[in-house]
Amino acid sequence: MQIGDGKPLKPAPMVLLGAGAVGLSLLKRILEKRDYLASNYGVSVQLRAVADSQSAVIARGDSLSQEELHQVIVMKQKRFPLAGLSITQPGCGPVELAEKCCERGVVLVDCTASSQTGEALRRTLEIGGKIVLANKMPLTGEYSLYRELTEDLGRSRWETTVGSLLPVISSLNRIRSSGDRVLRITGSFSGTLGFLMTSIQEGKPFGEVVRGAHALGYTEPDPRDDLNGMDVARKALILARGSGWELGLEDVEVENLVPQELEHISLQKFLEKVGELEGEFSARVEQCRRNGHALRYAATVANEGCRVGLTDVDVMSPLGRLKGNDNLAEIHTELFSPNPLVIQGRGAGVDATAAGVLSDILELVLG
Amino acid sequence: MQIGDGKPLKPAPMVLLGAGAVGLSLLKRILEKRDYLASNYGVSVQLRAVADSQSAVIARGDSLSQEELHQVIVMKQKRFPLAGLSITQPGCGPVELAEKCCERGVVLVDCTASSQTGEALRRTLEIGGKIVLANKMPLTGEYSLYRELTEDLGRSRWETTVGSLLPVISSLNRIRSSGDRVLRITGSFSGTLGFLMTSIQEGKPFGEVVRGAHALGYTEPDPRDDLNGMDVARKALILARGSGWELGLEDVEVENLVPQELEHISLQKFLEKVGELEGEFSARVEQCRRNGHALRYAATVANEGCRVGLTDVDVMSPLGRLKGNDNLAEIHTELFSPNPLVIQGRGAGVDATAAGVLSDILELVLG
Repeated sequence: MQIGDGKPLKPAPMVLLGAGAVGLSLLKRILEKRDYLASNYGVSVQLRAVADSQSAVIARGDSLSQEELHQVIVMKQKRFPLAGLSITQPGCGPVELAEKCCERGVVLVDCTASSQTGEALRRTLEIGGKIVLANKMPLTGEYSLYRELTEDLGRSRWETTVGSLLPVISSLNRIRSSGDRVLRITGSFSGTLGFLMTSIQEGKPFGEVVRGAHALGYTEPDPRDDLNGMDVARKALILARGSGWELGLEDVEVENLVPQELEHISLQKFLEKVGELEGEFSARVEQCRRNGHALRYAATVANEGCRVGLTDVDVMSPLGRLKGNDNLAEIHTELFSPNPLVIQGRGAGVDATAAGVLSDILELVLG
Repeated sequence: MQIGDGKPLKPAPMVLLGAGAVGLSLLKRILEKRDYLASNYGVSVQLRAVADSQSAVIARGDSLSQEELHQVIVMKQKRFPLAGLSITQPGCGPVELAEKCCERGVVLVDCTASSQTGEALRRTLEIGGKIVLANKMPLTGEYSLYRELTEDLGRSRWETTVGSLLPVISSLNRIRSSGDRVLRITGSFSGTLGFLMTSIQEGKPFGEVVRGAHALGYTEPDPRDDLNGMDVARKALILARGSGWELGLEDVEVENLVPQELEHISLQKFLEKVGELEGEFSARVEQCRRNGHALRYAATVANEGCRVGLTDVDVMSPLGRLKGNDNLAEIHTELFSPNPLVIQGRGAGVDATAAGVLSDILELVLG
């Protein structure tokens, strides 16, 4: 392939694990931005394989054809498994796929939400490939796996695991490679909880806000997966480890917004009963308001320990002024002192995350 | 050289152009962070050569010895030319140095403020080397040179040319490689002018603030080089070009805070007469205050044109709330919309800039 000035395009071979919302958006973006990537970066993305949780479509040559890619996109848009396509190879797990397709220079992109991809990512690095993670799970288990997956910055990116498209991890990596030292990080790292908190602050009832956000697809399929704080806790842990601190999930204190009696009932029942929390929340919000404060679900990340949970903040502080699903990171370091480095903006959304993943891939290919 | 676990260190060969304040701070940082870089990144920086405007100290082997580096540091701390050292080779210009030392993999680091280094940087890329610029001049002349020096992200970094250590350029590059499109950028990109403006807002007289900042070394040697807005104009141009817009310095409208009659007098005379501007400034600041506004020296960067100059902003807006020498960038894009990506924090300072340069070097070596 050639660009206008006759130089051949640089191939960017990749394998995609996970064809859910983010993976699908990435595939569409790669198709849409084909000419843009060629003319601006001289790069041509080659899809070696796409896998969902059960099977994989593997290119016979260097890349899936446009036609094959379209078939994959149509199938996943309908939320059907890839197994239904005639071009699909059944029973190809992530490790097998990595060993088959991820030789030197190939990027394995993990857009799953699975805790089972760690070994495939590890193997990819071992055989000379590169990795991009949108998946927090492999980075929030054993510290040794985190270390293995992130220590070679020439071959690994995980920007969208915290704050989606927001350049938080790349900035943290720059801080450390400049010889600066992180002192602590505070902020808001859940678009969903941010949206809920600002809506409640505007006087809307808690139950109604949760049900509305769920109906609009702003929450996880089960909103308790947002409300239990675990997603924010994993992000806090990735920030802590990225600051050079050897911590585990057990070092993060998590405030679960779902009371025990609502934890193990059906989703349907939960959505009916979530309104019962209204009284408690509106009382807290009202008390905050009287003190000139706002209620936020915030994270504090420090070597001494991390905490994620409800926090009263001054309405005029950066956190208090945050709107909608914007995220905010305040990174305090030796050089960013007394004022922190502040990074703020949209920190959620399927298309934003897919865009961030594409940027990670490009960095690895161009680097 | 080896690190603890027995793996050999990866050499990071570099040549430094410019041994002024930033270059000197970088040399000290490289010495100080030697063990840190080895144990965290497995990297050992090798100084092939250091040059000031007249001559260069060139390593006989792979790197200057610690002893030679110390001699260079002592000499430049006294602000003596390198020519006074016995190890110095006279009459070695930047292009000659690049051709002699910057073969494949070597990083040429431009910490000068010279408009004469463009050819050396160009030659370095031509013969397979890499470049890091803290120097705005080569990026704000001919567009074709900007393009040549920045188009290969695997071999070029210029983060500190805008906002010092603040991750503005890297974030802009990520936005573009994600396939997103910049709509406009606004912000404050002069630590010095930010400091002056917030001091005036606090009621301090203009002349006194300028003289005080000059005495403390917060301004350029001649504060008119800050007050004329040209430094901010160059930063605006680098942001515009980094957004993909083929603009030149002539496309940036600049508000010069130095009246014509004070432009061509001696520095001494200027410092005596700068108080004469007090009346005008305090009147403007007072008028802003009455409207609930603050006066800032801000930049607006858009494809239709760029402007840097005094602007009335709401005191409660991010720009209005900016303190001291913090910089602020608000990047509006298709994906960061309606709310922009905000990056804020210390945007000035010799040590911060040197730290940012070290991070650029590491990225190129590890990438």
